[in-house]
Amino acid sequence: MSKLMVTQKIKLAVKHNGQEQAKINIRGNIIGGERIIVIAGPCSVESEEQLIEVAHIVKAAGAHILRGGAFKPRTLPYSFQGLGEEGLKILAKARDETGMPIITEVMAPEDVELVESYTDILQIGARNMQNFPLLRRVGTAEKPVMLKRGMSATIEEWLGCAEYILNEGNLDVILCERGIRTYETITRNTLDISAVPIIKQISHLPIVVDPSHGTGVRSLVNPMAKASIAAGADGIMVEVHPHPEKALSDGDQSLHPIEFQCLMKELNQLSQAVGRKF
Amino acid sequence: MSKLMVTQKIKLAVKHNGQEQAKINIRGNIIGGERIIVIAGPCSVESEEQLIEVAHIVKAAGAHILRGGAFKPRTLPYSFQGLGEEGLKILAKARDETGMPIITEVMAPEDVELVESYTDILQIGARNMQNFPLLRRVGTAEKPVMLKRGMSATIEEWLGCAEYILNEGNLDVILCERGIRTYETITRNTLDISAVPIIKQISHLPIVVDPSHGTGVRSLVNPMAKASIAAGADGIMVEVHPHPEKALSDGDQSLHPIEFQCLMKELNQLSQAVGRKF
Amino acid sequence: MSKLMVTQKIKLAVKHNGQEQAKINIRGNIIGGERIIVIAGPCSVESEEQLIEVAHIVKAAGAHILRGGAFKPRTLPYSFQGLGEEGLKILAKARDETGMPIITEVMAPEDVELVESYTDILQIGARNMQNFPLLRRVGTAEKPVMLKRGMSATIEEWLGCAEYILNEGNLDVILCERGIRTYETITRNTLDISAVPIIKQISHLPIVVDPSHGTGVRSLVNPMAKASIAAGADGIMVEVHPHPEKALSDGDQSLHPIEFQCLMKELNQLSQAVGRKF
Amino acid sequence: MSKLMVTQKIKLAVKHNGQEQAKINIRGNIIGGERIIVIAGPCSVESEEQLIEVAHIVKAAGAHILRGGAFKPRTLPYSFQGLGEEGLKILAKARDETGMPIITEVMAPEDVELVESYTDILQIGARNMQNFPLLRRVGTAEKPVMLKRGMSATIEEWLGCAEYILNEGNLDVILCERGIRTYETITRNTLDISAVPIIKQISHLPIVVDPSHGTGVRSLVNPMAKASIAAGADGIMVEVHPHPEKALSDGDQSLHPIEFQCLMKELNQLSQAVGRKF
Repeated sequence: MSKLMVTQKIKLAVKHNGQEQAKINIRGNIIGGERIIVIAGPCSVESEEQLIEVAHIVKAAGAHILRGGAFKPRTLPYSFQGLGEEGLKILAKARDETGMPIITEVMAPEDVELVESYTDILQIGARNMQNFPLLRRVGTAEKPVMLKRGMSATIEEWLGCAEYILNEGNLDVILCERGIRTYETITRNTLDISAVPIIKQISHLPIVVDPSHGTGVRSLVNPMAKASIAAGADGIMVEVHPHPEKALSDGDQSLHPIEFQCLMKELNQLSQAVGRKF
Repeated sequence: MSKLMVTQKIKLAVKHNGQEQAKINIRGNIIGGERIIVIAGPCSVESEEQLIEVAHIVKAAGAHILRGGAFKPRTLPYSFQGLGEEGLKILAKARDETGMPIITEVMAPEDVELVESYTDILQIGARNMQNFPLLRRVGTAEKPVMLKRGMSATIEEWLGCAEYILNEGNLDVILCERGIRTYETITRNTLDISAVPIIKQISHLPIVVDPSHGTGVRSLVNPMAKASIAAGADGIMVEVHPHPEKALSDGDQSLHPIEFQCLMKELNQLSQAVGRKF
Repeated sequence: MSKLMVTQKIKLAVKHNGQEQAKINIRGNIIGGERIIVIAGPCSVESEEQLIEVAHIVKAAGAHILRGGAFKPRTLPYSFQGLGEEGLKILAKARDETGMPIITEVMAPEDVELVESYTDILQIGARNMQNFPLLRRVGTAEKPVMLKRGMSATIEEWLGCAEYILNEGNLDVILCERGIRTYETITRNTLDISAVPIIKQISHLPIVVDPSHGTGVRSLVNPMAKASIAAGADGIMVEVHPHPEKALSDGDQSLHPIEFQCLMKELNQLSQAVGRKF
Repeated sequence: MSKLMVTQKIKLAVKHNGQEQAKINIRGNIIGGERIIVIAGPCSVESEEQLIEVAHIVKAAGAHILRGGAFKPRTLPYSFQGLGEEGLKILAKARDETGMPIITEVMAPEDVELVESYTDILQIGARNMQNFPLLRRVGTAEKPVMLKRGMSATIEEWLGCAEYILNEGNLDVILCERGIRTYETITRNTLDISAVPIIKQISHLPIVVDPSHGTGVRSLVNPMAKASIAAGADGIMVEVHPHPEKALSDGDQSLHPIEFQCLMKELNQLSQAVGRKF
């Protein structure tokens, strides 16, 4: 127990003696470097107006990358499933307007080519962490991949999934802790902050934390974002919505713009205290 | 707590007043009827010789449907990934020789057409339970679908996934409980037998139990198969291998032929005691 | 994984080569023998009238041992905490009237002498499974002990607690599986039926199952009781109340008298089909 | 989900409108005030020499309170069970030598009087969180109580246990998050940092975090201690041993003296960045 251990069969996703931290360049923003990277935006792209509005808000507050879902994995078929390619076009437009790189989820191997043609980072969602055909396909893509941890994935299984991507030749893999499923019901998930130092100690891949999905509760996003940075995360991904109460998905966990601005100020102070830039 | 409750947004996967139990006909074998259906075979199709041998063994012991994986979801990219289409051909050959219908897993939307052209039941594995593009695709297939419960899926989420398939028009959905992830480490998973009566009480869909994956331990397969039938399951799915110690996957949980024969005899007696045919 | 393993430091609670199944005699009722033993009664002793009524009901239906709580562990201090010694006297009176032995919980070392002077079996509740001073104290008692599995106890930890009792010289320990805590919320707990064959394979101690606490849902008690017996349990413990809707505790999971009678008939048939007497 | 909710039956452990944060004075050290409080020391009191040595070490590094177990809850009866009253005397001697207040665990109601006569804080361990007779007994003690969260306790159940103590008249309750049990096996427990802001938002009771038990891995103690403070904890409790490799218990998670000194420096910087004193 005194040493963190994963199976020796994982070769590419673990750090070897002397191996440097991977640094992944997203249009000039380095994930895995000294600077803390903030990814922000709405859960879903709902309209051009909504996305452009929130893009300007998060950019002004200092965010580096814009998030927004165009293909949405939803528990029921009757829920809003995302705008699809129309959503991708809106994301690209927001990038053109603000200069912020974008990240969005891809859910099926046959969509990778399309999504890759728009986005700067391909996101693999928690429900697809062990969708191996999808992992292999993004492993041949030319864009970096953010791999979210599955709802009940062990650290070892998560790294095994990173291995699928790396093994196809795509070395730009960013891990994202987004909460695990436990018996506790007061939050949507239990954000496993310990995943951050564990990954830092056994892998060279950068890790960001998503405290929005990780808690499901707006008032917990700020303290858990700070905890993530204090634990050594390379960045955070947070949901921000101009009008959370009207959001088509995840309104309960989306920050109001003013809350996001406040968070950014606090993260700035904190980052310096733990030896990082902001 | 005195009533079992799931969200009212699930419409097709729940049982409405007076609705009859769905009966799904697999080349004459009815899943969801009085008779207990036994699906048996190896974890993976390894060779024609292996599959034909085990097919004759399980057929002789009274199994109704032959299982065998051609596309295998594995934790690491370096593990045996299945024989692919070659495996499907071997399965079809075993069906020709023995007359047993076959079930095999499909992992990606683009493979559904191919797999459907060989198999009698399309299996969706636990890791793909919430692979929504895949669910939609098999929802338009013309073969029945067995939907395994995700490793940490609630009953409600599981039914939500069945809803995706049903909503596309494929009404032949069989649910399969295969163990959930808990803190207990003495077994590979914790087989949730209570899922059986819960599904029976809130849904009209048939349910089978997979005690092989559900426990991961050979010596537990027999008692847990019996528990499943006593709890009201419509069938079981068990791994049988002519030489478990040589299996390319899941050898530890595969029954020896003689153990399978013994199980079949015991299930026969038990089924009658709980008002089922065998 | 093909073999069930617990730490070799557990010496008394594991079965050694050739060691016989322990048989514990409760006033002529053998727990651990061929016959399935049924323990039934209300969650709490509420009044003499209530307990005597239910005692006659369960006795008439064939139950062997009467259960009823006098000292109740409750989540909040404002809930009904049990009648204490008054409850013990009522239990003893019910035994005098019906001839059924009784089981009741003891919560503190200093109460053991008192409780032991009334009861036939000392019950250690799930919340006290690792209350080591209490375990040591009942280890010096002259009455058998039923040790419930803790809410998130591994099989190994559970046996470690049995070891505390056995190591003090009390060899009459009965294990009771009562559901573990998982992420699933549709039931109060997840009843781990696999604990039954696991205990049977690694220990000589008898095991009974409590499907009432194990599910928390009345309609699941019957199928889960049957599953327990099919899996090899030596008995079951179920909550029965003459008027569940008026129960001071656990009404939602208590069987109506007629449901209990029905269960007893079905268990009778089932027991014979799995080679047990009833 | 947008609001954190617990049952309204909890009256004393939740914060009411305008209610101030409780501040608990331990010989001049305020837990719940601006200053971060550090509790440090070995898992078990092993000898006078060992405890005095570590007491001087942690005092020199800036720790406020000395921890050390005299009554140890151990999984097996054959493990070192603590020195008992002899350990309490050694703790008192260390307090006399260093001026540091002490905290130690009490495991049974009948030991409360003895332990209280030595210690400054009575600790209730995770395994005894729902040992209600013990909670009631320390509720009548005149020393503050640190209540550790049970291994699989919900926040609501934890507060329900605090309610037992408060309801007896002892208002000096400190909560301690120490990791919960999940499916993840790379760490001993999963430290639930989100418990910190949740408690801060719904209760007035102070909360400290134990990253030593919370992870079970020495190299994770530092980052998780920092995460705890960033999330708003009032203090931390860490295991320090002069020679961890020789510790009679928990050596794998105990910090070396130099690691503790390093942690203290980093916590100092961090505390100021999040508006706390150190």
